[in-house]
Amino acid sequence: MTLHFQHELGLLKEKLLTMAGLAEALVSRAMKALETRAPELAQLVPEEDDALDRLEIEIDEMAVLLLAKAPLASDLRLITAIMKISRDLERIGDEATTIARRAVELNLEPPLPPSPELRRLHESALAMLAQALEAFVRRDPVKARSVPPRDKQADTLNKQIHRHLTDLMARDAGTMNRCLHLMVVSKCLERIADHATNIAEDVVYLCEALDIRHTGKGESD
Amino acid sequence: MTLHFQHELGLLKEKLLTMAGLAEALVSRAMKALETRAPELAQLVPEEDDALDRLEIEIDEMAVLLLAKAPLASDLRLITAIMKISRDLERIGDEATTIARRAVELNLEPPLPPSPELRRLHESALAMLAQALEAFVRRDPVKARSVPPRDKQADTLNKQIHRHLTDLMARDAGTMNRCLHLMVVSKCLERIADHATNIAEDVVYLCEALDIRHTGKGESD
Repeated sequence: MTLHFQHELGLLKEKLLTMAGLAEALVSRAMKALETRAPELAQLVPEEDDALDRLEIEIDEMAVLLLAKAPLASDLRLITAIMKISRDLERIGDEATTIARRAVELNLEPPLPPSPELRRLHESALAMLAQALEAFVRRDPVKARSVPPRDKQADTLNKQIHRHLTDLMARDAGTMNRCLHLMVVSKCLERIADHATNIAEDVVYLCEALDIRHTGKGESD
Repeated sequence: MTLHFQHELGLLKEKLLTMAGLAEALVSRAMKALETRAPELAQLVPEEDDALDRLEIEIDEMAVLLLAKAPLASDLRLITAIMKISRDLERIGDEATTIARRAVELNLEPPLPPSPELRRLHESALAMLAQALEAFVRRDPVKARSVPPRDKQADTLNKQIHRHLTDLMARDAGTMNRCLHLMVVSKCLERIADHATNIAEDVVYLCEALDIRHTGKGESD
């Protein structure tokens, strides 16, 4: 029974990692579609986001069945953490879908000058996500704790991008639609950083049975 | 043991309803601050949002302890549903905080003409939330199923508001900052409607052990 339980728990973790890989790939693809002006890439994103949605449901179903059999409090924590992380991954897929849709719209008009801040925010959000997921795989609370402090940097980048785009619109009203699309893209990336932060906080809780959400403790080291 | 468990489960449900009442009050207060141009009202919102954050953590802690003792699959479903709903309520508090911050910014400049669409979106989002929570309290899947179809209407209103504000900025660049703030407020309301939809879907799952997320089934009746 316990061996069987451990096997099923292993399958649940594997499914979460499949979901994580897919979520990361979707964000990269959506941003590549935006940067290389490739609408055919963007069109694949909503379809793959459906796969992510299905995985979330499968994980929830497996998780509830496993909760009924979990012998240890640590297993309960792991299973509930997996359910939470899977919801964040699903939301990351939604953000990627929004980026992809905006990439399609942006391709209908001439390109604006590339934004180094947008690229930095993109890299930062993906790095935070990779770090949070690696912390989950290794059960590494030190690595997990290094993610939330980076969230402020993502917020700052988003605000800078927002300001630049507002200035650009003010100078040239013809760029308004494109600037508004890019503001949405920037906000999506900032939200992906938020989700990575949530995941990292769940990993700390998992490792230390301590809830660092909303305490600011995650920001202290 | 079972009586004790039922008592604790009752306390968990009560705490969720406290959280729900607070989340609803925060949204109303933030929108009132916006509509009546009352920055002193807006300033209370972030503080009360902290209370919401603490309640989410308390619910998570109680829920994990209860999961270990839950005798029935239906209890497991209820407890995991409560954890999910509490996360949505916490996010609603975050949206209310964003609205309140924008209300403070908007008060620094002369008012724009009131938007009937924004008022409709506000009323619609709060009505969806109230309906989803009532469906939870009554375990009423029919009422819960009536929420997701209204989400499309919220999306449409948000798009209309966005379009009107874009037109206004294009006609009068001096309104740009205010229009951008109002676009954020509108998006926050649209997200509150999304969270209400998530809650309603959790209630359907709870009542029927059927996952209607991402299937479009919620939209058929």
